[in-house]
Amino acid sequence: MVPATVPAVTSRIQLGVVGAGQLGRMLHQAAIGLGVEILFMADGQSDPAAQVSPNVQIGSAMSAEDLATMATSCDVVSFEHEVVNLEAIARLAEGGAVFRPGSHALGVVADKIGMRTAVEAAGLPVPPWRVIETTAAAVAAMAEWSEVVLKVSRGGYDGRGVFVAEEPDHAVTLASELLSGGARLLAEPRLAFDAELAVVVARRPGGDAVVYDPVTTVQIDGQCRQVSAPATVPASTAADAVEMARSVAEAIDAVGLVAVELFFVGGRLLINELAVRPHNTGHHTIDAAVTSQFENHIRAVLDLPLGAATLRTPATMVNVVGNAAGDDPRDTLAAAAAADPGAHIHLYGKSPRPDRKIGHVTVCDDDPARASVRAWRVVAALRGDVPARIEETLV
Amino acid sequence: MVPATVPAVTSRIQLGVVGAGQLGRMLHQAAIGLGVEILFMADGQSDPAAQVSPNVQIGSAMSAEDLATMATSCDVVSFEHEVVNLEAIARLAEGGAVFRPGSHALGVVADKIGMRTAVEAAGLPVPPWRVIETTAAAVAAMAEWSEVVLKVSRGGYDGRGVFVAEEPDHAVTLASELLSGGARLLAEPRLAFDAELAVVVARRPGGDAVVYDPVTTVQIDGQCRQVSAPATVPASTAADAVEMARSVAEAIDAVGLVAVELFFVGGRLLINELAVRPHNTGHHTIDAAVTSQFENHIRAVLDLPLGAATLRTPATMVNVVGNAAGDDPRDTLAAAAAADPGAHIHLYGKSPRPDRKIGHVTVCDDDPARASVRAWRVVAALRGDVPARIEETLV
Repeated sequence: MVPATVPAVTSRIQLGVVGAGQLGRMLHQAAIGLGVEILFMADGQSDPAAQVSPNVQIGSAMSAEDLATMATSCDVVSFEHEVVNLEAIARLAEGGAVFRPGSHALGVVADKIGMRTAVEAAGLPVPPWRVIETTAAAVAAMAEWSEVVLKVSRGGYDGRGVFVAEEPDHAVTLASELLSGGARLLAEPRLAFDAELAVVVARRPGGDAVVYDPVTTVQIDGQCRQVSAPATVPASTAADAVEMARSVAEAIDAVGLVAVELFFVGGRLLINELAVRPHNTGHHTIDAAVTSQFENHIRAVLDLPLGAATLRTPATMVNVVGNAAGDDPRDTLAAAAAADPGAHIHLYGKSPRPDRKIGHVTVCDDDPARASVRAWRVVAALRGDVPARIEETLV
Repeated sequence: MVPATVPAVTSRIQLGVVGAGQLGRMLHQAAIGLGVEILFMADGQSDPAAQVSPNVQIGSAMSAEDLATMATSCDVVSFEHEVVNLEAIARLAEGGAVFRPGSHALGVVADKIGMRTAVEAAGLPVPPWRVIETTAAAVAAMAEWSEVVLKVSRGGYDGRGVFVAEEPDHAVTLASELLSGGARLLAEPRLAFDAELAVVVARRPGGDAVVYDPVTTVQIDGQCRQVSAPATVPASTAADAVEMARSVAEAIDAVGLVAVELFFVGGRLLINELAVRPHNTGHHTIDAAVTSQFENHIRAVLDLPLGAATLRTPATMVNVVGNAAGDDPRDTLAAAAAADPGAHIHLYGKSPRPDRKIGHVTVCDDDPARASVRAWRVVAALRGDVPARIEETLV
């Protein structure tokens, strides 16, 4: 029996995390093992991490006051998303607060135009791109590339804020609407890539880093839906991707995790997106790597020696997204558990909405094709899909 | 962003767990992934599980009232220890409350004499033993076995309540003291066993069960300190141990986990101890099995299909016990992380006291000898042992 009167080890909490979604929830699972206490900044008590942690500060990542409160309570403050008040973070850091990553790295990834500029400045390859400030520029881009992807520079994620124009008229309409709404835009050609890859890096303040094996990702409607590790690319390409990711993390001086998404096209790697937090393309590491991305994020931001990022086994992760009926996967857990006793089911406690990420399933299997089929089968069971629908889902 | 107004899925909590120590803490980690909410009954907010969960009922496992409160709040109530008010549990179950395991299985394992009797009645082998009700009986046992282990029937754990008598006078003194204190005693010969094994079974209400691979355990001063998986015994012995464990779980009609500890002596297996909860000899399953014992305990007591118990890799687990200086392993985490980037560190958030279990370290390694050395090295770092002391620890 543990006595009821054990004093707290420190009066301050070791780690604050801004945001309390599924990434925070999985950070909490990892923190428990390390004996690290996290204070989460949540929108409300029903946020995925707030549901499972006793240490919650209700607040907003855009509020300078809420960020200051967290910085006062915690030795180190980190993030599970990048939609934050950068000015407040920079000012608090000047006053001695410790934010990891810092406002510079957060600022780079929060703005696609700034991100592309920074990656190019580091001498690393990106897709052809340009800033679009007029509808005429959009028309010119169409003339050059025939199919154009227009992206808002700030605030987009998971396919939101990304638009494909297949005809000049559409490009004009899109650009006109978005520019009149005040968005800064960039355009790039729609690339017929051979694969999309992602690489997750964990980096400590001094620069010490580990890099996870590159993975192959599949997006549906711009949303990550499947991740397979390791990536099915030549070994030299994988090695190049690892080095590029390490260089990016250095270039933006990120602390914590950096996720680098790349296009593999015509034998070349092009850096498409960056994030400085745990990332959907690293969820398989919970079950398939020696140290999960979540544990290594904690280790990195607390400046602890990093755990091995080695992949223990090939694995495929498939996201569970809400179906049209709004079914809750907690209600179909028994069917999912019965569908595959070897699958690792991760539910986020989120209320289901169509196309919302509400969980993921990882299957470790030496045969990548079988891993994929097994994971999709469990996801179908969680979504309550009848067997006949599973094959459709796979198409 | 998750809206702050998502309603709770149910007004009742799915699972109550009586006890909030390290076993509860690790149950919480597993429950988060399954989207299962646990209410813990804790002695206080600083209990290991209460530190990391928002759902805590302060109460006592001996209080009929506290147990009734938990049964009213939860669909199913389970346990992380067996020192509970059995009468209250039986009475509440008659009134419709769902306790898994039930009072029968809890009662069997809470009393060593009853446990030995039940195992024998099931036709399974136990060490030679007898009930000791007089000092004369203790002397007779000494005469027959020359070295005798005296055990109090109730309340002992981790070597507490177990006494070795090497001389008749000592046996008389021990028996006299313990009997006059009101304890019921059993005696058995001190066995020169070749190995101690353990097997963990997860069993659903209908009898469906999975069995983890047998492990070899090493106790120091009666306390489990090292577990190696799989056990280094002939395959036929391992298969026998699995079948015996399965039979025990059936015989006592346990629901949830059953841990069976066995002596391997002269080519024979003898059942020594039982527990009906997550067990120290299954901690390695978090990192080394497809499904951890903690997840399978939750699945079993909620009557969900069980996860595969397959061992993914050989592994060794070593407990972190408090050192004489009372050092806190949270203060030496950096050194431990540096000692082996592949080790899995699990800290319990307990205030350190000499010989108290405050964490464990698992190393997955195909070479069992290397796994053991690596794990002990990390434990030594967590204990702040200077390198020269590591070799002593290993002896």
